[in-house]
Amino acid sequence: MPNTFGHLFTVTTWGESHGPAIGAVVDGCPPRLPLTEADIQAELDRRRPGQSDIVTPRKEEDRVEILSGVFEGRTTGTPISLLVRNADQRPGAYDEMRDKFRPSHADFTYQAKYGIRAHRGGGRRSARETIGRVAGGAIARKALSLGGGVEIRAFLTQVHDIAVPSGALADFPTLAAVEATAVRCPHLPTAERMIERIKAVRSEGDSVGGVIECRVRGVPPGLGEPVFDRLEADLAKAMLSLPATKGFEIGSGFAGAGQRGSEHNDLFESRDGSIRTRTNRSGGTQGGISNGEEIVFRVAFKPTATILQPQATVDRQGAATELIGRGRHDPCVVPRAVPIVEAMTALVLLDHWLRHAAQCGSLRF
Amino acid sequence: MPNTFGHLFTVTTWGESHGPAIGAVVDGCPPRLPLTEADIQAELDRRRPGQSDIVTPRKEEDRVEILSGVFEGRTTGTPISLLVRNADQRPGAYDEMRDKFRPSHADFTYQAKYGIRAHRGGGRRSARETIGRVAGGAIARKALSLGGGVEIRAFLTQVHDIAVPSGALADFPTLAAVEATAVRCPHLPTAERMIERIKAVRSEGDSVGGVIECRVRGVPPGLGEPVFDRLEADLAKAMLSLPATKGFEIGSGFAGAGQRGSEHNDLFESRDGSIRTRTNRSGGTQGGISNGEEIVFRVAFKPTATILQPQATVDRQGAATELIGRGRHDPCVVPRAVPIVEAMTALVLLDHWLRHAAQCGSLRF
Amino acid sequence: MPNTFGHLFTVTTWGESHGPAIGAVVDGCPPRLPLTEADIQAELDRRRPGQSDIVTPRKEEDRVEILSGVFEGRTTGTPISLLVRNADQRPGAYDEMRDKFRPSHADFTYQAKYGIRAHRGGGRRSARETIGRVAGGAIARKALSLGGGVEIRAFLTQVHDIAVPSGALADFPTLAAVEATAVRCPHLPTAERMIERIKAVRSEGDSVGGVIECRVRGVPPGLGEPVFDRLEADLAKAMLSLPATKGFEIGSGFAGAGQRGSEHNDLFESRDGSIRTRTNRSGGTQGGISNGEEIVFRVAFKPTATILQPQATVDRQGAATELIGRGRHDPCVVPRAVPIVEAMTALVLLDHWLRHAAQCGSLRF
Amino acid sequence: MPNTFGHLFTVTTWGESHGPAIGAVVDGCPPRLPLTEADIQAELDRRRPGQSDIVTPRKEEDRVEILSGVFEGRTTGTPISLLVRNADQRPGAYDEMRDKFRPSHADFTYQAKYGIRAHRGGGRRSARETIGRVAGGAIARKALSLGGGVEIRAFLTQVHDIAVPSGALADFPTLAAVEATAVRCPHLPTAERMIERIKAVRSEGDSVGGVIECRVRGVPPGLGEPVFDRLEADLAKAMLSLPATKGFEIGSGFAGAGQRGSEHNDLFESRDGSIRTRTNRSGGTQGGISNGEEIVFRVAFKPTATILQPQATVDRQGAATELIGRGRHDPCVVPRAVPIVEAMTALVLLDHWLRHAAQCGSLRF
Repeated sequence: MPNTFGHLFTVTTWGESHGPAIGAVVDGCPPRLPLTEADIQAELDRRRPGQSDIVTPRKEEDRVEILSGVFEGRTTGTPISLLVRNADQRPGAYDEMRDKFRPSHADFTYQAKYGIRAHRGGGRRSARETIGRVAGGAIARKALSLGGGVEIRAFLTQVHDIAVPSGALADFPTLAAVEATAVRCPHLPTAERMIERIKAVRSEGDSVGGVIECRVRGVPPGLGEPVFDRLEADLAKAMLSLPATKGFEIGSGFAGAGQRGSEHNDLFESRDGSIRTRTNRSGGTQGGISNGEEIVFRVAFKPTATILQPQATVDRQGAATELIGRGRHDPCVVPRAVPIVEAMTALVLLDHWLRHAAQCGSLRF
Repeated sequence: MPNTFGHLFTVTTWGESHGPAIGAVVDGCPPRLPLTEADIQAELDRRRPGQSDIVTPRKEEDRVEILSGVFEGRTTGTPISLLVRNADQRPGAYDEMRDKFRPSHADFTYQAKYGIRAHRGGGRRSARETIGRVAGGAIARKALSLGGGVEIRAFLTQVHDIAVPSGALADFPTLAAVEATAVRCPHLPTAERMIERIKAVRSEGDSVGGVIECRVRGVPPGLGEPVFDRLEADLAKAMLSLPATKGFEIGSGFAGAGQRGSEHNDLFESRDGSIRTRTNRSGGTQGGISNGEEIVFRVAFKPTATILQPQATVDRQGAATELIGRGRHDPCVVPRAVPIVEAMTALVLLDHWLRHAAQCGSLRF
Repeated sequence: MPNTFGHLFTVTTWGESHGPAIGAVVDGCPPRLPLTEADIQAELDRRRPGQSDIVTPRKEEDRVEILSGVFEGRTTGTPISLLVRNADQRPGAYDEMRDKFRPSHADFTYQAKYGIRAHRGGGRRSARETIGRVAGGAIARKALSLGGGVEIRAFLTQVHDIAVPSGALADFPTLAAVEATAVRCPHLPTAERMIERIKAVRSEGDSVGGVIECRVRGVPPGLGEPVFDRLEADLAKAMLSLPATKGFEIGSGFAGAGQRGSEHNDLFESRDGSIRTRTNRSGGTQGGISNGEEIVFRVAFKPTATILQPQATVDRQGAATELIGRGRHDPCVVPRAVPIVEAMTALVLLDHWLRHAAQCGSLRF
Repeated sequence: MPNTFGHLFTVTTWGESHGPAIGAVVDGCPPRLPLTEADIQAELDRRRPGQSDIVTPRKEEDRVEILSGVFEGRTTGTPISLLVRNADQRPGAYDEMRDKFRPSHADFTYQAKYGIRAHRGGGRRSARETIGRVAGGAIARKALSLGGGVEIRAFLTQVHDIAVPSGALADFPTLAAVEATAVRCPHLPTAERMIERIKAVRSEGDSVGGVIECRVRGVPPGLGEPVFDRLEADLAKAMLSLPATKGFEIGSGFAGAGQRGSEHNDLFESRDGSIRTRTNRSGGTQGGISNGEEIVFRVAFKPTATILQPQATVDRQGAATELIGRGRHDPCVVPRAVPIVEAMTALVLLDHWLRHAAQCGSLRF
């Protein structure tokens, strides 16, 4: 089921960039969760194009409709079908893509795999696919928050070579701080420099990548599975399943590879009546299971593949040709990826919450 | 199924460090693959303790028995049960661990999750669990190699702060070059420095981390799934499911986040009658699907958590105490992780090979 | 994933009887299959209410929209989203059902399970859920037919105590013969008696059950899995997942339990260059795997639970009360279940076709 | 994963009749369940050959070893590996089966599917595969009994044409009554006739089929999933996955198809402070979800395919030949199938128990 994520709480996404609609089906949702379209719309609005002057000007309302699974304002435990109509389509703008493969896009690999592809606007390869993830994630997030007190916060720590200074974000950032700027970096001086860089790069018809950090607090010890479905493994999969991602690290990450055990180990202590670690180089999990500390991970995004400069490529017959980016694109996708990273995090955590409850919480001996 | 990996070609591992045995069940294997215990033993011998003077001296033969699924030297398509008896057990050496939580190990999280744990030698948390992965991976590897011409090679590029110089490993390393030193780094000058560092650190009762790079050639375009089960997502999950891993990156990875689109994009060209990319910053996949180029990724490992120095910790009641590492441990687990990384890679690739064949190769219209 | 069927070719259904719409998402479809809404509509029209004077008069057009996964008339290998708007809703007609549990319906069990239920028209418990199955099954059926030459035919063999005489349907019935009467029994004298009985029972405000037989020809030897996912096991699950079903039998079925081995065994012979069985008491599978003979099974349906007579029941507080059936219902659901049985059969067979191709057809040694 | 059953509590079986061993891996078991080998052995002894003079004389101790997942007498939540060595092998007895296909066995279909098969004693097709099911089921049964108060009882109601008189087994039979005779029919007069019939048939070198009924009490309302994974659908799949089964029916079953709604419906009433049904034609579920009544279903078994009479068949080249049953076989497999039916029932129920707890019991709003 390549278009479904999760084991117990699942999201199945469907839809192409230039088809009539995009959507998702959420299955396994706990019953009686208060839920309205507004809960979901709030998150969709955060990923929507056209929010600021540093993102794509594509005009999409991205209004979500709940078609099933909610009755008198509460979930019923049956599948929740979510629908978003596509609006601002310019199919003619994409004729060239029928035959030419855009560099570092998935046109060639789709053609190689399926022998057919919907070429307009990237079809299924469009980042519009993530609408379904954000919609499903909004439900997971609400369940985790209301039922479990879990709080998820993602934000930018790097755009191109501009990074938040080390140690500058020690506290769990507030949502207001993240949303204060279009670039979603809660460190304001850095945010301003990031925005400038994005504008400069855009004016050159170019693009840049960046890094998102995500922190989660309120996760109790015990979530995760020790072998293949480690919490960090499922988070890594969730993040690398996002368009344009190139890397994932948790806790100390790649830097940890350069350390000694004596400096890297997180020593245990008793604090406020709980067993806690003094440091958090583990990033909130040990052996694949949450330890009650903040979950902290980072995701690397490559620069947007579409650039407004001519690039050499080939057509379907392999003949050399040239392609120049058209359509409407983000010079840097990373700010709009923040709610998507949060959505995927919520999906992983709620799924593991339910799995843990099933195995360890339902029968007592 | 937290102890099963894969969708069509699956490996289920079982066993604890100090139980009677460790093993795996492989299901979904294509029939008629020539297979003997020697095929599997060769890979187990590469991960086995006691291979060199820089790894743990635990004495384990790790002899594999095939209990089912092979008939007259060929797989039958039914489950292959693999068994390895545990031999060198010193249960008494672990009495202290019954009550005290080892820092940066999973003792605490297992206790929190299950309310019970086999404490000797880490029980299920021991890296001996990876025996089943290597055994299953050896079968996947043989199927990919014989049936598909796929070649997988992992090796160390970093130990502590000693790294292979950039560009020094342009060619696909040979197995002989990797196996030439105990540290499994095919760049000999670097390998020598790595070995010295590991010895130095061990003499201080300390440990270090490192980085493994894995390359795969011979994968045809088309493997992978575009949305959640992207090839890179499944590789990321596979790697982060390994003990002691903290990060994963594919192609340009975290460095790619610091680049511009105009320098990062892989331009297409025709080469030798195929559509190829001039560069390989994508790392062999685009949009989650293999593009026929080399698959290249890196995995970060933290320093071994067990060190032979006293460390502060708490016991199960939360009372402060101290623990000093005993038992037999690797000062750097990374060299022995090389065959494990290769095994997990083989599992991911064979599973996607079968999935792709099912959807795109079995019915023609 | 309680609302998803299948492993490789999957259908996820969603929707309630009195919500805005009903639908399904089909994933894993082989690419390049020619597909239009008309292909699906033809099957939906067969299950639609209001087709004849022996079924419910609920007026539903049940027009299907394909929202994704098809491009220029062919499937793309990405998820196919199918939507059917609900039209003829009379929510007021169901107020009584908010508090009272209908006998032999699932009102009570939904309330017990979820603590909430959409009570109008049975909500998710309505047989309108099967629209998604029929829509998904239509795609599977076309793929099997075009790509594999498989033909599926279901029909009634019993209504109440009126049954087709033994041996009267030796030949594979034509679609025309099945569709010739509203009751979908290809044995015309029996069909006429069935229709009379249904009318008589309806005039008394009562209902009756019946039996469907399904035959499949063109399935090659080799489909199915030998242990848990036997072809007959997956068919049994598929059929018992349908509303109102009480039994499943394949080949000789329950009658076979009363036979001796010497009379029951299917002897092998060579016929037309193939290995065939002389008789087909096995019903087309041996050991869970198709043997190339006709697959033959039967499904028992109970009488419709809704009857237009007063029945004793309780309300949510457990107080004794009475309920009289309202709304629009079929006095016998079995004729409309014929396309649903065929749809589920197609889903099982295509899924196993792809599974078999993956394991046994993609790598050769 | 064709050799794995279940979603959360899973059993993976492996092994061939004449390989070195047979076994199973149980994953997802709730932690802290008291468990010893004796718990499992008790159930294995019930299915073991050689228990009485009406079953196969094959001599197998079928001693189970627990290799993992249990620590100091309690389950740890990690996989439980179970091993049973094969003992009484007579490989030479099966040479003829290398080339000839036994009628109504799976020799031909395995050969067609895999192109290879372990021919001795039926290899993977042997009913010895069910050892793993019974072992895994014993664990599920203990968890359900200790943690949930669920009681499962299967027994024979028919052998050949000898059946328990209607209504003769109104009460839930005791285990002692079932085990009182070798034929496991708690109605003694019928049991005696069944035993005679089996002996008579055996003396003619022939075999007979039969029917098992299974009843479960103590299941609370709410287990099961409403659409594809209905409780009765998963029970049907579980039963049809057993060797030699030809049919499944729940509650009224096929007889229900011949009834009217007014006589078939189960009216609700309040009894002992609970909402109960007056009758139980539904068989314990409505809409796929348990309703708190006894779960009652029946399974049809065909006569043993191996008979000690010459039968016409073909060899692998399709040439006509003859085969006479050798080896050691049961003239009626049904008595030994009783613990297997109970085991599969326990697997289905525990899996649904955990699924229900996950979705409906873990987060409250």
